[in-house]
Amino acid sequence: MVREVEPLGPVRWGRAPGTVRVLDQTRLPDQEVWVEVSGVDGMVEAIRALRVRGAPLIGVAAALALVSSLERWVDGCARSRTEALAQLAAMAETLRRARPTGRNLGWTMDRLVAYADRSGAADARALVGALRAEADRMVAAEVEQCRRIGEAGLSLLPPRDPVRLLTVCNTGQLATAGIGTALAIVYAAHEAGRDIEVFACETRPLLQGARLTAWELARAGLPVTVLTDSMAAACMALRRPDLVVVGADAIAANGDVANKIGTYGVAVLARHHGLPFYVAAPLSTVDLNLAGGADIPIELRPESEVRGAEPARVPEGAMVWNPAFDVTPASLVTAFVTDRGVLRPPFGPRLVTASQGSAEQ
Amino acid sequence: MVREVEPLGPVRWGRAPGTVRVLDQTRLPDQEVWVEVSGVDGMVEAIRALRVRGAPLIGVAAALALVSSLERWVDGCARSRTEALAQLAAMAETLRRARPTGRNLGWTMDRLVAYADRSGAADARALVGALRAEADRMVAAEVEQCRRIGEAGLSLLPPRDPVRLLTVCNTGQLATAGIGTALAIVYAAHEAGRDIEVFACETRPLLQGARLTAWELARAGLPVTVLTDSMAAACMALRRPDLVVVGADAIAANGDVANKIGTYGVAVLARHHGLPFYVAAPLSTVDLNLAGGADIPIELRPESEVRGAEPARVPEGAMVWNPAFDVTPASLVTAFVTDRGVLRPPFGPRLVTASQGSAEQ
Repeated sequence: MVREVEPLGPVRWGRAPGTVRVLDQTRLPDQEVWVEVSGVDGMVEAIRALRVRGAPLIGVAAALALVSSLERWVDGCARSRTEALAQLAAMAETLRRARPTGRNLGWTMDRLVAYADRSGAADARALVGALRAEADRMVAAEVEQCRRIGEAGLSLLPPRDPVRLLTVCNTGQLATAGIGTALAIVYAAHEAGRDIEVFACETRPLLQGARLTAWELARAGLPVTVLTDSMAAACMALRRPDLVVVGADAIAANGDVANKIGTYGVAVLARHHGLPFYVAAPLSTVDLNLAGGADIPIELRPESEVRGAEPARVPEGAMVWNPAFDVTPASLVTAFVTDRGVLRPPFGPRLVTASQGSAEQ
Repeated sequence: MVREVEPLGPVRWGRAPGTVRVLDQTRLPDQEVWVEVSGVDGMVEAIRALRVRGAPLIGVAAALALVSSLERWVDGCARSRTEALAQLAAMAETLRRARPTGRNLGWTMDRLVAYADRSGAADARALVGALRAEADRMVAAEVEQCRRIGEAGLSLLPPRDPVRLLTVCNTGQLATAGIGTALAIVYAAHEAGRDIEVFACETRPLLQGARLTAWELARAGLPVTVLTDSMAAACMALRRPDLVVVGADAIAANGDVANKIGTYGVAVLARHHGLPFYVAAPLSTVDLNLAGGADIPIELRPESEVRGAEPARVPEGAMVWNPAFDVTPASLVTAFVTDRGVLRPPFGPRLVTASQGSAEQ
């Protein structure tokens, strides 16, 4: 039995009032730089610039920014409970708009606002204290959810070592408060003494697979091989991974999945090669207000991420298309690996039941 | 009717003895730099470093390097015809090994050596003159082949404008002596007054789509949109190209196709989306000595092309896989677009007949 993998926790309460301490993921793998992000606007910038990324981690980061910013706003002033609730709702709305696609961000904001509304806190200061404790509970719950996803995933691994898992983007300690979603399965397998190897698609345009997945797996002493996204098909044909596991930014009620651009293509390739394609995500990623993938808003990001600069890789005179996410239809998903176990098709009713059960907890 | 597209001709006879003038494709799109490549070793370096790339253009570049190097070797010395033939064969062998996968390189070397062997040239100097004329004929023939590929492809375009074509890597004026293979169809459509738009996959790791295809199409005034390779699936689902056309580095006797890494994945995606997938190539790309794709040698290129440098995108401690090509099985190819027309399945016998007919010309 290998020692338990300790989560890195790339988002923490800041030292100064109104701040959140964040590992700046745009600097990895070259430099491990922690920054103090100040206030709601600072966190919106950090999320948009992808200093903090990964749908679950964005939720945590926004929660900490929301509570610490409210704390600073209340501190030293005579604010009423009603004023604080209005301020909280306004700040939550600003944070919610930082990125449109991920589900966890909106879910976290909804949850903290609802918690504040029904909290019995007598005044603004007590309200802040209650919210801070609630944010801590949410972080702890996410750490626990990641563990449960990892354990649920163990049952899906083939019995023979080595296990070879192909993944997209980063879905590990850098994407969550815990050990991850798709990568939680890798860490859980490692802890269980399995011999597991990862093929990491580099994940253009921002290379979160090459930069982040490779960094955190190598740091944990796990074998990881980076390939360009264009090599995924050849990898499946020649190097024969056993399974594909990806994360999710949003899951619609019918099981359609929005995730990092490139996921849909890998799902089609997995089907073509007869490989199981699993989506690992906490049930908070399911949005029952979205009937299907066509309802999920897809963020278009700046051309410059693809075009490059000084010198540009794409010449002037050529256009660029840069959607940050794509939608994988539920029909290509073998199963969801969630904090409440493995869900197999038909997804619609099972996702609804499971995520309603989860919300009631 | 639009004016005919004039080929750029990125490989030409050099001014100094023993040299070939080459547009350095590693500097595009930022800078248009022509270099004088000297001798056989200089051309091997230029091909390995991808200053010259594209299977047909590599053949032309090697032909010009072979003849100009032999000319310099013969010049001012008393070389016999027999000595010159031996030197030619040795230099051809060195050039042939510059890149293992592309078919045209070996084909061109074989053809020039065979031409020299059966030439009636009385002495070494006459032999060089005859080879120079033959190399010029080969270049002219390639220019003509590109035109014929373009014209053959016109019949495959849907009748309604605009036509949207998705492609991989670069297969145009920068990949051949003429207007290209897959992109020849785009230029021919433009000349025929069709409204044609190109989706260019950026083609990691060396971005020949983003850098080269975008550059030459924009230069010709044609609309081109660059996407990362990971966006090809979403592009097919949302932006609905009408067809996919790619080039080929080698075609086996059964119709399996080796082409730039990523091609196989795009072929699978095209099949999934019900899009026709065409391979445009001169028949000289067919190698009847290769029974199927498994026999095609696949070049593995340096890790550094994926890993990057200063700072590295992939951290130390992570491995990298970097095959330059992949193999698309014939079953995923809708048709071949060749200099002798469109070939539809069953490919095996038709490819054999067509390419034997072509070799006899």
